Amino acid sequence: MTADVLDQGEADGHNPTRDEPISPDGRPPSGDLIRIPARQGRAVRLLADETITIVNTHGTQVCDFWAFNAADPREYLSMEHMRAYLSRFTPQAGDGLISNRRRPILHFVEDSSPGVHDTCIAACDHHRYLGLGCRDYHDNCTDNLRMALLAIGLRAREIPSPLNLWMNTPVRGDGRIEWLPPVSKPGDRVTFRALTDLVIAMSACPQDLVPINGLAMRPTEAHFELLG
Amino acid sequence: MTADVLDQGEADGHNPTRDEPISPDGRPPSGDLIRIPARQGRAVRLLADETITIVNTHGTQVCDFWAFNAADPREYLSMEHMRAYLSRFTPQAGDGLISNRRRPILHFVEDSSPGVHDTCIAACDHHRYLGLGCRDYHDNCTDNLRMALLAIGLRAREIPSPLNLWMNTPVRGDGRIEWLPPVSKPGDRVTFRALTDLVIAMSACPQDLVPINGLAMRPTEAHFELLG
Repeated sequence: MTADVLDQGEADGHNPTRDEPISPDGRPPSGDLIRIPARQGRAVRLLADETITIVNTHGTQVCDFWAFNAADPREYLSMEHMRAYLSRFTPQAGDGLISNRRRPILHFVEDSSPGVHDTCIAACDHHRYLGLGCRDYHDNCTDNLRMALLAIGLRAREIPSPLNLWMNTPVRGDGRIEWLPPVSKPGDRVTFRALTDLVIAMSACPQDLVPINGLAMRPTEAHFELLG
Repeated sequence: MTADVLDQGEADGHNPTRDEPISPDGRPPSGDLIRIPARQGRAVRLLADETITIVNTHGTQVCDFWAFNAADPREYLSMEHMRAYLSRFTPQAGDGLISNRRRPILHFVEDSSPGVHDTCIAACDHHRYLGLGCRDYHDNCTDNLRMALLAIGLRAREIPSPLNLWMNTPVRGDGRIEWLPPVSKPGDRVTFRALTDLVIAMSACPQDLVPINGLAMRPTEAHFELLG
């Protein structure tokens, strides 16, 4: 595939996430496939009982995923509470996705991929890329969360640890964490159903210095759709 | 050991953490062994280059541990950033303890125990004990953090996921998390050296419905000391 086909976005220091919401209030037309451009983030309002499907369009892309209670964003999807609630490291189809108030706020309906997702690594951020040697601004998932929320009129009060869809960072028996390419394939999708009104944010992770978005280290777009 | 010797505290709905700081400003006499009563929390100001040693007095007690930058508490010890920085699930002697700005804020100097600590489970809280069937107030580490900070005049802006010293909740190969008693022994201690001025909070975890504080499910006191 060429870079054009992959829609890699550009690492030019300009990230339009702040100015390109899916709609001013974050409500999209239901049933349309909506693009998360490479290296960018998008937020969407998901009403109770609606489902959201996130698509790994090109198969090698990690998508950071957050969910906030629309009525009270101090409640949010929390990896550390979810692991305790499930007594399991990674959620799988059939599970609830658990908030910091220890209740399911999404139901994990379906996963066409092998189920390799990460719950233990922070979203990449300015400090991460400084540590990797970047001197100029590098797109990052934390800023994408902030900007995607701002774009629909909301502000991130804190930055929860994300559910890193398709991120393949296994913890080995000796405790070492490896940074590996996804094992997903093009078109793989996960589907979640909202159990309450939510604000969802997603970032097509711009990591291009560590092979979590594939050995070619070329971040790509992802897509999502809502069903009522 | 009898319950008296163990100093189990009392599950009577009254937790004096808010009213019994180690001192009004959180600075203790250096070199004194300070008690964290069973089921309670304590906060202490630790200056750069000082060390803090936390003692598992009776050997079976989990101690939740938090650290905040004294000059800017928006920076704090962060499990999800630490795991990424270290590429390791659990820190060990010789490591830095990493903040959400991806820098070491403590140096892990020494560990007399087998090194089994948890980084992936949220502090217990009101919702946790509701889920375990409690109807009345149950002491919990999250409230202990809040109250221990209030006791020295500070407020918790958010509740980071704690470093759970001596908590033995291994992640099995199939992703299952087990809730097991500590493998530490009476008097085991960990020592950290501050790399900047910090506020430290600790909670002698009051969990008595799951055997993480020993098969007897009797939470006990812990101790700590500062060295200049």
